[in-house]
Formats: sequence, C-alpha cells, structure tokens
Amino acid sequence: MFQEMYDVIVVGGGHAGAEAAAAAANLGSKTLLVTMNLQTIGQMSCNPAMGGIAKGQIVREIDALGGYSGIVSDKSAIQFKMLNKSKGPAMWSPRAQNDRMRFAEEWRLALEGIPNLDFYQEMVSGLVIEGERIVGVRTSLGVEIKSKSVVLTNGTFLNGLIHIGEKQFGGGRAGERAATGITEELMELGFESGRMKTGTPPRVDGRSLDYSVMIPQPGDKRPEKFSYLNTPVLDIQRDCYMTHTSLEVHSLLREGFDRSPMFNGRIKSLGPRYCPSIEDKINRFADKDSHQIFVEPEGWDTVEVYVNGFSTSLPEDIQFKALRSVKGFENVKFFRPGYAIEYDYFPPTQLKHTLETKLVENLYFAGQINGTTGYEEAASQGMMAGINAHLKVNEKDPFVLQRDEAYIGVLIDDLITKGTEEPYRMFTSRAEYRTLLRQDNADLRLTPRSFELGLAGENRLKRMEEKQSKSGLFLQFFKETSFLPEEINPILENVNSSLVKQPDKMFKVFSRPQVTMAHMLQLDKVSSFVQSNELDKEVLEQTEIQVKYSGYIEKEKANADKLQRLENVRIPSNFDYSQLKSLSFEAREKLNAIQPVTIAQASRVSGVNPSDISVLLVHLGR
Amino acid sequence: MFQEMYDVIVVGGGHAGAEAAAAAANLGSKTLLVTMNLQTIGQMSCNPAMGGIAKGQIVREIDALGGYSGIVSDKSAIQFKMLNKSKGPAMWSPRAQNDRMRFAEEWRLALEGIPNLDFYQEMVSGLVIEGERIVGVRTSLGVEIKSKSVVLTNGTFLNGLIHIGEKQFGGGRAGERAATGITEELMELGFESGRMKTGTPPRVDGRSLDYSVMIPQPGDKRPEKFSYLNTPVLDIQRDCYMTHTSLEVHSLLREGFDRSPMFNGRIKSLGPRYCPSIEDKINRFADKDSHQIFVEPEGWDTVEVYVNGFSTSLPEDIQFKALRSVKGFENVKFFRPGYAIEYDYFPPTQLKHTLETKLVENLYFAGQINGTTGYEEAASQGMMAGINAHLKVNEKDPFVLQRDEAYIGVLIDDLITKGTEEPYRMFTSRAEYRTLLRQDNADLRLTPRSFELGLAGENRLKRMEEKQSKSGLFLQFFKETSFLPEEINPILENVNSSLVKQPDKMFKVFSRPQVTMAHMLQLDKVSSFVQSNELDKEVLEQTEIQVKYSGYIEKEKANADKLQRLENVRIPSNFDYSQLKSLSFEAREKLNAIQPVTIAQASRVSGVNPSDISVLLVHLGR
Repeated sequence: MFQEMYDVIVVGGGHAGAEAAAAAANLGSKTLLVTMNLQTIGQMSCNPAMGGIAKGQIVREIDALGGYSGIVSDKSAIQFKMLNKSKGPAMWSPRAQNDRMRFAEEWRLALEGIPNLDFYQEMVSGLVIEGERIVGVRTSLGVEIKSKSVVLTNGTFLNGLIHIGEKQFGGGRAGERAATGITEELMELGFESGRMKTGTPPRVDGRSLDYSVMIPQPGDKRPEKFSYLNTPVLDIQRDCYMTHTSLEVHSLLREGFDRSPMFNGRIKSLGPRYCPSIEDKINRFADKDSHQIFVEPEGWDTVEVYVNGFSTSLPEDIQFKALRSVKGFENVKFFRPGYAIEYDYFPPTQLKHTLETKLVENLYFAGQINGTTGYEEAASQGMMAGINAHLKVNEKDPFVLQRDEAYIGVLIDDLITKGTEEPYRMFTSRAEYRTLLRQDNADLRLTPRSFELGLAGENRLKRMEEKQSKSGLFLQFFKETSFLPEEINPILENVNSSLVKQPDKMFKVFSRPQVTMAHMLQLDKVSSFVQSNELDKEVLEQTEIQVKYSGYIEKEKANADKLQRLENVRIPSNFDYSQLKSLSFEAREKLNAIQPVTIAQASRVSGVNPSDISVLLVHLGR
Repeated sequence: MFQEMYDVIVVGGGHAGAEAAAAAANLGSKTLLVTMNLQTIGQMSCNPAMGGIAKGQIVREIDALGGYSGIVSDKSAIQFKMLNKSKGPAMWSPRAQNDRMRFAEEWRLALEGIPNLDFYQEMVSGLVIEGERIVGVRTSLGVEIKSKSVVLTNGTFLNGLIHIGEKQFGGGRAGERAATGITEELMELGFESGRMKTGTPPRVDGRSLDYSVMIPQPGDKRPEKFSYLNTPVLDIQRDCYMTHTSLEVHSLLREGFDRSPMFNGRIKSLGPRYCPSIEDKINRFADKDSHQIFVEPEGWDTVEVYVNGFSTSLPEDIQFKALRSVKGFENVKFFRPGYAIEYDYFPPTQLKHTLETKLVENLYFAGQINGTTGYEEAASQGMMAGINAHLKVNEKDPFVLQRDEAYIGVLIDDLITKGTEEPYRMFTSRAEYRTLLRQDNADLRLTPRSFELGLAGENRLKRMEEKQSKSGLFLQFFKETSFLPEEINPILENVNSSLVKQPDKMFKVFSRPQVTMAHMLQLDKVSSFVQSNELDKEVLEQTEIQVKYSGYIEKEKANADKLQRLENVRIPSNFDYSQLKSLSFEAREKLNAIQPVTIAQASRVSGVNPSDISVLLVHLGR
C-alpha cells in the first residue's frame, strides 16, 4: 500500500509530532504523520494554555526557528499575558489561554497546508529494523511503511494506564485507547524503559460556578502575542478566575487518601514535581491552609472549564465532594473527573544531542517519551528531532542548539546529559545564561540559523533583520546624541534621580534604573527620531533592553564564550573512560554511559567533578 | 457524586443522543447526556452530508418540531442542493454537504446553550433497574447516576467490531473503543438482540487527486437551507466531483474477495441494502461495467476527502490498488482505509410507538440500536424518544406522529410494527402519503403540534403562521381574481398552451401544467399583489404547490382520513390473539408478538391479511 519510501515518519500527532512533521516536511523531506486518530491532531490534552515562565520563551524560540506552536496559539488565543513584566526582561514570559477546539483545528489546517506532508490514521505497533538502523514502521493492521528515519512522539500513550481512585484502565487519554507494542520492541533492542505518571484535574460545567465570589484574572490591557510573524493580536479576551481551597476542602480530600493510587502504592512512578496533584500538595505542605485554584475557560464559546491546580487521581466521589467545598464551586457539575495516567518513557541519556537514539540509527524520540512534561517542551523536541531527521537523511551536519543559544539547547542538553527521573519541566533557573535567552530576542538568536538551514523563511529573516538594524540604529542614536541639562532635568526631577549640570550623551542618563523609554520619548528629538525612522513597539522595547541591561548581557556573553572553549574540546566517540584510572570511579561509570561529545558536556554530567575535567583536559592534550 | 435525580439520562452523543438530550431538556426535564468522549459529540461518523431523498424531508420535520439537526447543518454547510427539483414537490429533497469539524462544534455549542442539560464523560456499562422500571445507569468506573428515564443511543458502539480484510478489532468507530456491558444486561432482562453491520469508505488526501478529469458537482445556483428559522444561506459553496469505477477497478477488487470478511463468512450480519459496499455492488451487479463515485470534501479548508460509493471492508492493500485505478485517483494517498463494523442492535418490535421498550418501563431506544441506518433516521428517533421520555416522566400523553403526518411517523411505525432484519433506511416509497409529507410543508404539518407540546418556540410558530396565512391569502387571490384574455394569452402562447377566449379566474390557467409562478409574476396585478403583501420566496412556492397539486393533495388527505378511522379503532393492550381461532396462525403469532395499538397498525404487520383485519373488526364490535 505504501510503495514509496518516506524520508521521515513521525509517529503521533500531539505537540511534538506536529512540530516534527512540520519541520521535516518544510525542509523538503517526504514526511508521513501516523496517528491513532486524525481527529485529535494538536489536542491540548491537559490545560488550555501555552507558554508561561521559561515555557513562553520556548514557544518564542520555536517560532523564531519557523515552527508553528506560536502561530497556532496566536490564532486560537482567548487571553494573553506577559508574566513577570515587573522583573527584568530575562524573566518576561509570554502566556496565552487558548480555545481548545480552535487550537486543534488550526494545527490540523496548518499541517494540511504543507506540501511534503502525508497523513495516515492507524496505531503504529512495531518498528522495522535492519541491522542497527530503522527502516520503517508497522501498523496494528500489519501495514508496513518504509522510511529512512522515524520520530517517535507517543506521549502518554505507550501502555498508558489511567487511575481514578481504586479503578484503573488502559488508555492514552480519557476516552482514547492506549498504544501497545512499541515499548516491548524497543526493550528487546536493548533500550532501557521506565514509567512516569502525570495527572489532570476535573473538567467542569462553567454554568454551575459562581464567578461572583472568585477573583477575576483578566488578560493584559495591551496584549502581545507569540509569533514574530504577522499573526493577530487579541482585541477582546476572556477572563480566568482565581479561587482557593480551604482546610475543609483538604480534610474532605484526606477522606479519600486510603483509596488514592498515589498513597496506597498502586502508582509507583514519579509525577511532575512542579505540577503536583492536589492530594500531593496538601500532603507535602501539610501546614498550608489553602492552595490557589485557577479557573480557566476551555474556549470562546464553550461552557467547559479547566480547574487548574486541582489535578487529582482520588476517587471521583471524593473529587466531587471536595471541589463542592471550594468557594464558587458549591454547585459544581462535573464534565469528567480528574485522573492520573502512567505511561512508558525511555531515559533520555540514551539519545544524542540530535535526539537520535544511540542504539538505533535514524530513530528519534521527542516529547513525553523522553521523560519531559509540558506542551512547549514536547513541541521544541519534536521540532529539533524533525530537523535532525531531515538533515541526517540528507547527510548534512546536525543542528544542535547550545545552552547559551536557546532554552531548547538547555532542555536537550539537560535531558541527554543528566537524564531525568521525574517528568522534566523547563524553568529559567535551569539556564545559566538566562539574560541572553530572553523572549524578546529569540528571533535575533535563532532566525538567522534557521534561515541558513532553509526552515525559517525569507519573510521571517527580513522582519528580524529590520528589527535588528532599527534597534541598532536607535541604540547608536542614544550613544551619539547629547542632551542639554535643561532638557533632561525636568524628567530626572520627576523620577527622583540626581540632576545633571552639563550636556552628555543620552545613553548615560537612559542607563539610570529610574529612566524608562517612556521618559525618553518625552524628548522631542527622541520622538521625532522614532517617527522619522518608523520605529515600532518591538524596536523600542529591544533598544531599551539593550540600553538597560547591556552590562549583564555582556557579562553573560563573556561567560558563555569562556565555556564555549570547553564546548569546542571534542571527545572522541566511544571513548573508553575506564582506561583513565585518575578519574573518580563514579565519573568513569557515568561518562562511559553518557558518552559526552565535548568537555563542556562532560562537566555537566552529575557526579563529574572539576578534578575529573582537569584529568580529561590533560589526557586530551589541553 | 450524582446526588440529584435526573428526569432523563441520554446515553450517547451522536445524532440520536444529541436530539434526544436537546428535546428532553428544552421541554424542561433535568437531563444528562453521558458519552464516552465529550470531544466527539455530533460526529459525522460516515459521510459529511445531511439530507437527501426522504432524509432531507426528515431533517425539515426535525426542524419544524424544534430540533437542531437542520440548524446545525445550515451553520456548517459547504454546499446545498434541492434534489429532484424536476419532479413533483413530493420528491423535492434537500441535501447539504457539511464541514465535519464545524458540524460537531455547532452541535456541541448548541447543546451547551440548553440550561437544563448537563454533560458527563464516561462509558455507561450498566443499567439500574428496579422491578420492571429503569431508575438509572452505571458507568464503567462504577458511578451510579439516578434517573426517572433513560434513552439509549449507542449507535455502532455496542460490542462494535471493526473488519478490514482478514483483520478484526474491537471499536465503536475507527480510532475509538467499543462499549461493553449494555447488551449482556439487556439480554438478561429478556431482550432479543441481533448483529448488524455497516461500512465506510477510505478517507483520502484531496491534494493527491486529479480533479481535472472528474465531473464537477456544484451546489444549487440559488441554494436553500434546512431550517425554517433564520439560519444563514450559503453565498459561496464547495464543489463535489464525480468519477467512476471501471472493469479494471472491479477486477482489482475481486483479487481481494477471498480475504473479504463479507464473502468468506466472517461477517454474518446484514448491511444496509441501499448503501452497499463496492465489493457488494460488483458482486451483485456483475454485468455493470462501472459504478459512480462521489468525491466529497470534508470541510471548507481541510484537504480530507470522503470517497462516497467506495465503502469497503476489503484488505487495505486491495482498497488502495483498486482506488488507484479509478480516474483521477491515480496518485491517491490514504488518510485511512475503509472498514466494516458489526454492532449489536435490538429488533425494534420490542418497542412501543413512543420508542419506550415494552419490557422495561421508562427505557427508550433510539438510532442504530433500533436497526436503522442514517444520521436523519437516528436524529428523528432521538428527538421522539427525548420528547416521550419527558412526557412520561411528567405523566402526560405520549407524542406519536401518524403515518400521514410525518416521515418520522412512517419510520417509527415501520420499525415497531414490521421490525427490520437489515439496516432500515427511509425512502419516499415507504410513505403511502408522500404528497402530504413534503419538505416544503413540514412546518405547517408539525410546528403547531410541537408548539402545543412546548417544544417549538413562539418564533417558530409565528413564522409558520405568517407563511400559512400569506400563502392562503395568495391562493385566495388566484381563486378570486379574474384575468383578461389579452393579458394571459401571450404567456399561454409562449408555453404552447391553448389560448383562452374569455375572462376567467386566474386559478384556472395557473393550474395548467405548463404555467408556473414565474409566468404569473409577469402579470402586473400578480407582481403588485406580491409586493404590497411582502410575499417571500417560500410563500410563492407554497402557493404554487397548493395550486398545482391541490388535486393530489386532496385525494391523499381523503385516503388518509379513511384509514384514520381504522387508526382510531384501538385494540386493548395485552390482547390475547390466540383466542381468535379464525385468525390465521401466522397472524395470531405476529400480532401477539407486536401487540399493535390500533387496527390500522395491525393491518401493517407483515403476515396479517385483510381477512384477519375483518375478523378483528368483528371481534371488536365494528
């Protein structure tokens, strides 16, 4: 039936699968997306939101590289917020609430618009391997589809087991069946696998809630968006609401603890630490009287509501009774209870930086199968796997992002170097160069690299270059233009900054913490420069960040460059660390397992000390 | 969890379930819709189209009664056609192509807008029975939900088994799991069950088709719509295309016959005779060189295409090879193969006219569970079951439509009186009064009855009454107004109708077959009457039909009235026919089984002869 040989087969149509398929096909690979149900492509299986702290930066990076998560999110957004706007720009994190149905529809239509991308609906239950190389997949109907490479993005579907109280049943998501066959086959090939768990809260009927006693959580007054392209900006938005649990709610929840799969040992695998279930929260933080609950609408028109913060696998009667005691939820009606799901993952130390597996050539893993959690983490891995599958098939150099280039670089390096025992989520704290990895400059960081690959289009590059040259010009203006004391002193007085006595370059006063771009714009020469050069909001923001944070940025760049030197010291592949007896035993063992590609990567392997690094550097002749 | 007692629980969210839930809730019953997946409410599981011959009339009837199928279809239509427009108005049948995603979304939003309607996502796997009355359902998680009545609309999900070639696997639809438990429980209660099968064609990638060699099938130039309410009329439409199979295609298909579950005995149950699989067609009509294939887009933007006429359960490699030989499909790519599905149904002779089961009080069946096929057949049963469940709970008289009132009346009477051995589909030929049961007058026939029930709203009634009074006025105008020969003769000459010599009433010439409303409108007095009375297209059409077909209509009305007398002769319930030895043996047996409510119904039971009816009439004292 499939006579032709595909370049890339992507298994799964979630965030990882969709980005993987899009990237490979847009780069020119004959690509096939195989999924159990074509109707559920791009499903938001958990909360109806994209972005957030560190995650929003990832969406911007995906977008800068020419992916779709930002575009799809912008087209289906119902609310937008820039989080942490009161902090430094390294912390600014875009986040959107989305219309769940619209999001999936936009993804589906976006994918259908890609010429090289084919679709097929069936469960992939086997891999076709020749030697140590993958050459295709086998469906549960026995159809064999040939391919030069395969990207697995099975999410929570591999032997998925859903838990609600004492009940458990197979399933990849509520109402959908699990996928079988793949794990067993990979284990036979020598892969190590594990189990993780995640959970989701009840979905409820918004008509049964009393919003008047909750705290409205509106979007930004002047909402922005994810994509650097010309996607729409929201002019109307939907509110979320906040409410809280109470001691009464907690004691009602405790009534179900003896029937909880989390506490009675039925669930053995680890869940996401920073997205704990409500029972986990009241158990671990027993001294807290109350936890926040965010009430998120599932779309523009639907009455379905997501109860963020109330993820649970307690028995459904307990979920119900406890939620009814939450302020505003006194008359709540359930659409469906929350549940936990256990699924197979493969410790990601079994992967290369390209997300190709070390054991089977041309086989890539992306998303939850690698032990991560989150749409953004999944999407970015999918994209990188799709890009690298394409490059490998075409015998081109791999595309790897460094830790000082992108959160995506941090994510993948963390995964393959350190592995993860619990669902891995991105945080700004995981990045050592977070002043460099800002949401405002993802295009400046990544679009040129992606354009070179052939993924980001001319349009994207042009917009980036214009932003870059205009903000450069504007920065130059501040560095070269002088002010007169009588011009600037009224402003400085206003913000309680010491006055100046002599003319000086504008850059100098603008650098003061109290002085903002808004103040600068009060000066005629600034505003007329802005007007005559048609500088937009993005350019103003970019310039301001360059002025205010240039010190930090330069410092981090220097640090990164220093470390980059270690990044350039490559270690031969299949290096035998056991011969280096001066290495600690732990370092020998871990390094042999991980096989880092560079000294820098070796230094990040847990259990490897600076003294081990010195030994290595000496051995490699440095 | 569900402390409150519902009035009506509807199990299933397809066409039947959605209409049932809407009707019961809109009438004021506390209603709960339980479905395995809330994301798939209102799914068009087979072709993306509503209506067609006899089926379009049913959609109009559902709409006239205050249902949603017409509204949802209008809002999601991508093409509209009035079929059989060249024939008499009894044959005019509206049909729409729909955007599959939009259709489901509109249904979901419509249902969410109904205040009395709650939703819950889970598989119902058991019924709660007390004595001989249903009092609730049990979900697969063990949640018990109490209710005064239950409507089962399980579609193809009950022990659904999907066949593709020699492979078979459980499932309710492709990619969705089957429902279990209900059949077994009903059989224990004494219900007779059977198996039926249906099938669906492959879905393919429209980008892989060569439309230039196919025949475009555009929509109507001036498209109409289903709903009598103020729903949108299409201003742009999408084309369908026609192509044909060939002897080559047939011989390729035959290569798979030995692996066909239809022919090797693996599928034992009967499929819909008038919607046969392609293998069935070439087998039964071996002398035909070619069969039509209609290529239907699945929506406005999607590239997915439905291959109408190519339903098949042959092995997927055979499906593919054969379809590749169809003109325009030389490079076709599959989204998914076609398949057959076997599922449980319950012979509908076990039901009353209200669709309540005879065995279990307050339990109703609607849709494919009753052995029917088709969205429209399912939707109309769902609506009637929902209405009657509400009425019963409120101790009100049942709502039953007669055979001369609605296709829906014919459908239900056929089902419960004759039963069905193969999937039952509506045809105009099944109606003895099809001149009465037109698509143009469903509102006149049914809206007043539904308004009385409290289902059709004031708005609906007003629109209907205005149409009725205006067309009555216009008809009166033709009956009372005279023409002058010099006015009318140019028109008559034009259409080759004999000229008139004397003035006469306009009704007289308008009755001539060659003369249409368009001709009449050429007369100043007609067009000025239309203008001053603001008569719209619908009124003109209604008046024309009244003028042209009044003879037929009157005759059928008289026939119907005659039979209505037999309809009024009620037979006592639990009547023991075995005591009437003058009845034929077959009649005694069948009548005992069916327990018809009236003499008219008895006369329609297969195997009951006119002589048996005479015996019954004598016995009942007529």
